[in-house]
Amino acid sequence: MAPRKIIIDTDPGQDDAVAILLALASPDEIDLLGITCVAGNVPLPLTSKNARIVCELAGKPDIKVFAGCDRPLGRELVTAEHVHGKTGLDGPTLPDPAMPLQPDHAVDFIVETLRREAPGSVTLCPLGPLTNIAMAFEKAPDIMARVAEIVLMGGAYFQVGNITPAAEFNIYVDPQAANIVFKSGVKLTVMPLDVTHKALVTAPRNDAFRALGTPVGVAVAQMTDFFERFDKEKYGSEGAPLHDPCVTAYLLRPDLFSGRVVNVEIETRSELTLGMTVADWWGVSGRSPNAMFIGDIDADGFFSLLTERLARL
Amino acid sequence: MAPRKIIIDTDPGQDDAVAILLALASPDEIDLLGITCVAGNVPLPLTSKNARIVCELAGKPDIKVFAGCDRPLGRELVTAEHVHGKTGLDGPTLPDPAMPLQPDHAVDFIVETLRREAPGSVTLCPLGPLTNIAMAFEKAPDIMARVAEIVLMGGAYFQVGNITPAAEFNIYVDPQAANIVFKSGVKLTVMPLDVTHKALVTAPRNDAFRALGTPVGVAVAQMTDFFERFDKEKYGSEGAPLHDPCVTAYLLRPDLFSGRVVNVEIETRSELTLGMTVADWWGVSGRSPNAMFIGDIDADGFFSLLTERLARL
Amino acid sequence: MAPRKIIIDTDPGQDDAVAILLALASPDEIDLLGITCVAGNVPLPLTSKNARIVCELAGKPDIKVFAGCDRPLGRELVTAEHVHGKTGLDGPTLPDPAMPLQPDHAVDFIVETLRREAPGSVTLCPLGPLTNIAMAFEKAPDIMARVAEIVLMGGAYFQVGNITPAAEFNIYVDPQAANIVFKSGVKLTVMPLDVTHKALVTAPRNDAFRALGTPVGVAVAQMTDFFERFDKEKYGSEGAPLHDPCVTAYLLRPDLFSGRVVNVEIETRSELTLGMTVADWWGVSGRSPNAMFIGDIDADGFFSLLTERLARL
Amino acid sequence: MAPRKIIIDTDPGQDDAVAILLALASPDEIDLLGITCVAGNVPLPLTSKNARIVCELAGKPDIKVFAGCDRPLGRELVTAEHVHGKTGLDGPTLPDPAMPLQPDHAVDFIVETLRREAPGSVTLCPLGPLTNIAMAFEKAPDIMARVAEIVLMGGAYFQVGNITPAAEFNIYVDPQAANIVFKSGVKLTVMPLDVTHKALVTAPRNDAFRALGTPVGVAVAQMTDFFERFDKEKYGSEGAPLHDPCVTAYLLRPDLFSGRVVNVEIETRSELTLGMTVADWWGVSGRSPNAMFIGDIDADGFFSLLTERLARL
Ligand SMILES: [Ca+2]
Ligand SMILES: [Ca+2]
Ligand SMILES: [Ca+2]
Ligand SMILES: [Ca+2]
Repeated sequence: MAPRKIIIDTDPGQDDAVAILLALASPDEIDLLGITCVAGNVPLPLTSKNARIVCELAGKPDIKVFAGCDRPLGRELVTAEHVHGKTGLDGPTLPDPAMPLQPDHAVDFIVETLRREAPGSVTLCPLGPLTNIAMAFEKAPDIMARVAEIVLMGGAYFQVGNITPAAEFNIYVDPQAANIVFKSGVKLTVMPLDVTHKALVTAPRNDAFRALGTPVGVAVAQMTDFFERFDKEKYGSEGAPLHDPCVTAYLLRPDLFSGRVVNVEIETRSELTLGMTVADWWGVSGRSPNAMFIGDIDADGFFSLLTERLARL
Repeated sequence: MAPRKIIIDTDPGQDDAVAILLALASPDEIDLLGITCVAGNVPLPLTSKNARIVCELAGKPDIKVFAGCDRPLGRELVTAEHVHGKTGLDGPTLPDPAMPLQPDHAVDFIVETLRREAPGSVTLCPLGPLTNIAMAFEKAPDIMARVAEIVLMGGAYFQVGNITPAAEFNIYVDPQAANIVFKSGVKLTVMPLDVTHKALVTAPRNDAFRALGTPVGVAVAQMTDFFERFDKEKYGSEGAPLHDPCVTAYLLRPDLFSGRVVNVEIETRSELTLGMTVADWWGVSGRSPNAMFIGDIDADGFFSLLTERLARL
Repeated sequence: MAPRKIIIDTDPGQDDAVAILLALASPDEIDLLGITCVAGNVPLPLTSKNARIVCELAGKPDIKVFAGCDRPLGRELVTAEHVHGKTGLDGPTLPDPAMPLQPDHAVDFIVETLRREAPGSVTLCPLGPLTNIAMAFEKAPDIMARVAEIVLMGGAYFQVGNITPAAEFNIYVDPQAANIVFKSGVKLTVMPLDVTHKALVTAPRNDAFRALGTPVGVAVAQMTDFFERFDKEKYGSEGAPLHDPCVTAYLLRPDLFSGRVVNVEIETRSELTLGMTVADWWGVSGRSPNAMFIGDIDADGFFSLLTERLARL
Repeated sequence: MAPRKIIIDTDPGQDDAVAILLALASPDEIDLLGITCVAGNVPLPLTSKNARIVCELAGKPDIKVFAGCDRPLGRELVTAEHVHGKTGLDGPTLPDPAMPLQPDHAVDFIVETLRREAPGSVTLCPLGPLTNIAMAFEKAPDIMARVAEIVLMGGAYFQVGNITPAAEFNIYVDPQAANIVFKSGVKLTVMPLDVTHKALVTAPRNDAFRALGTPVGVAVAQMTDFFERFDKEKYGSEGAPLHDPCVTAYLLRPDLFSGRVVNVEIETRSELTLGMTVADWWGVSGRSPNAMFIGDIDADGFFSLLTERLARL
């Protein structure tokens, strides 16, 4: 079977980096048409630089990387340096990228790619705030019917929130964009905190990355080392949740995940609960399902896959 | 030590009934000054009748029972016959009460009791929507400083909601009242779904009630039999959560419970998330703590206490 | 015909004072059953003192004055000393009242009066935030069907707002209470800024009060002298709007006023527009009419009435 | 002096048509770089067709017309066929346009034009919902600093609303876009209903258009004939308000208009007041001014200008 064509929309972020590396390590299954960058964990100049750093780390300087929106729809940008460090990619020391950004705007690349490729052949993989995706859908609504699927990291139900008590970071940064995407009618698979908080980089899992002995393995170990400081302290957990790689892992091994097809609405009205993904897990609302909301993961299978694939780079 | 003076504010409800019975069975520790009724699970005429049915079942027709507000603040009443049955107390067949309602309004009884009793000597135990309590605080703000503590059943964080995907029933029915109570500055202990969903009436626990062989034991077994149909079907759990008795059990054995002192805000602005108790469990909001939010329970200890005490009636 | 029985609910305020004086000067048409005070222009201790000062100024120390709620429903109290001065009644120098406050709570007086008097015989005249009225309706919903009419000062449509760009003071202070009253189904006549801004105390009209030469006439002139400083400066108008007396004048001479029966909804959700009275003047919403919204006044007739009646005190 | 470079963003609409004709009739003062169309009064296929019909009516088939967004940001499109007729341009019978739409997206034309032309040399003239403008600002935030000024028709303060009791049509259709534009920091001049309701096409003014005897004069007379049916019936006014031409007239003769520089915020949170332009006309909010909010017009001067200029086409 031909590899699945995807666009990764991202705000790296250490976990975005690992998600990208997993895609790049899996060319038989994944054809990465391009990486589109958005403001999120850190401002756009850094996310669009970090994406290229990651491509070069993987030895893939030919991947097309585009810069997109530098702010959410109608809101000030909120960033997360307290989690990801000043650069967004704190941990390893990696060289500045030599590969250039593509000249086009990320939104235009998304639009043009979906119009060019066969209908239903391109999957969008958003790993950050949904600004670029929403802008593309608003600018060119015809492309919505051409998207195969959106598999995204964002939101929470039983885990409720991380950046606020009621909202997960990606959705909170741009609730209006999330609302557009969740109302788009496009097939939607969501990796919320409910599942990513079960994908913890424990010490043995981190050791397994480092034991690869490759530049990629060591860098990933160093990234998760840095990343986990925050979560260990906050949650008292045994390791950092590896949020974004759940998206690319799902493309490779959907059997590792389980969830429910439910209605998910985005809170856009109230300051207190802004950006909440109200998932009707128990089916009490009478609203129509619009998303597969993932709730569980085979974490050992996930980390085995990750380690095995990263070894290929 | 003198027994603790309390007022139970309630909308029975089978679980309210068990909470009241537990209080009535514990006169050494609990001095029940009165029961104030509110519209909630079923309309006020039924809740104020059911409270008296329960008192008579316990052989305590001398308990003062007051009717209070028949609707929430500025909203239509929402009821829960789908859970509690048409009468609110479906399950056993119990005779209509002979004891009268007290002539005073529940709100006035709360105000006058708090003014009459020594400051800091009366604990309020709300088991339903917070309308009566909020009305008393609004009418007579001086009483707030005289309340020893409020121990209430309501809200949810990791369990998020039951009547809507984002809200627990008691708070959802009257979010404005809840907002008044949670902002009152009164010492607050909250039994949310997070803990009550761990207090499940499994078959053996139900059998233990029935095995008491007393009218009370049999009636409680029949009530939980009825009550659990709903939850077993919805959640696939091994039994119904016994929400409200957590409040009276906490008065008797606080050591059975654990939680965190956190900020809890009530969502009053957005239809989508109306009535959510936004509990800052992870301390990310910077808002000041205003409630002990209970998260865990020794369920076996709780059911042992319950069975042992109900045996005394 | 027997005089119309009314209760004035008020937060004096110079214009409240004039409204009360007009009622007291008209015993043939108005039977003032009592004055209930609420926090608003100034805190409750001052409004309940000012109401008595006004009764004594009118030589009516036998009027029953009750203190009610000292804060709005679920919100901090906002006051308007910048308009009314520190005492709420700045302008004349008037002696402290000798007459006592009644011992009952204003809310209970409203409830008991409506239950005692014949159904449909008592008109409520709120001149401040609607807290007391809403509390009475919530505590004793049976009284709503017994109210003859509510004639209130509050809100705005074409004049939009005064305390904020979108809200008039009385409604803004307690939007939840206003929402309860406007949704109550009770017959409602509203004197919004649209009409009260046409009832301006120009210099000749002020002179006419003073020319009465009586203590009441002089005090009213001094009050409006003080009051108008604010409005003249803000609006550049030729005098201060005499808001609250429109209510009592309407009882005496409804023919001086005209308006439309329209739907009026209260904004309770958004901070930006909180307390707005959204009046569907043009009938575009499809929502059912619930209020006579007054838009015009015969200002000369109004001031003639006022001067003529004040002369009787 | 060189003519002022402008882009008209529009949803024709009879009054949009007149606004465009006025610009096209004034080449000495106005250099119309292009017309960008948006969904609003009628769907995008009609507005982008109507814009070309108007250009051809004016004998200017060389004007560049672009289609833009076909829906607002995150909301269903609301249209106004009840005002403008099924085509949006009901009234005259005009031939379908022969001139083509430009291939580029309106948003890209706006972005590229602002980047190409000298900073501060291009004025944006939105006559419909602000979707295209907001999208351009979000996609390319660098262009905001390059806009000379935005002169737009939209909003209301003392006139409050037309499509709902609290909102004017253009802003109501896309409140999120309006919020982006009003928060952009770009110099902003607003023609709200407050002023456009003073620009009424009375019978003599309509006759003056018809008396021009030209195809343009007759078509404008027929358009305003049609358009005014709605307003005459609704408002009982002596003619239809000619909303959008106020924008182009302001470019030609700003001396015909007066207003205040005030803070204007857009209501985006509450369904009841959605799309309200909360203009702080009295300066009570303490918020910083961000717009010249026009309140008055020399209507005779405006119609003289209009008739005189239309005669040139
Ligand atoms: Ca990310
Ligand atoms: Ca209950
Ligand atoms: Ca007043
Ligand atoms: Ca238009």
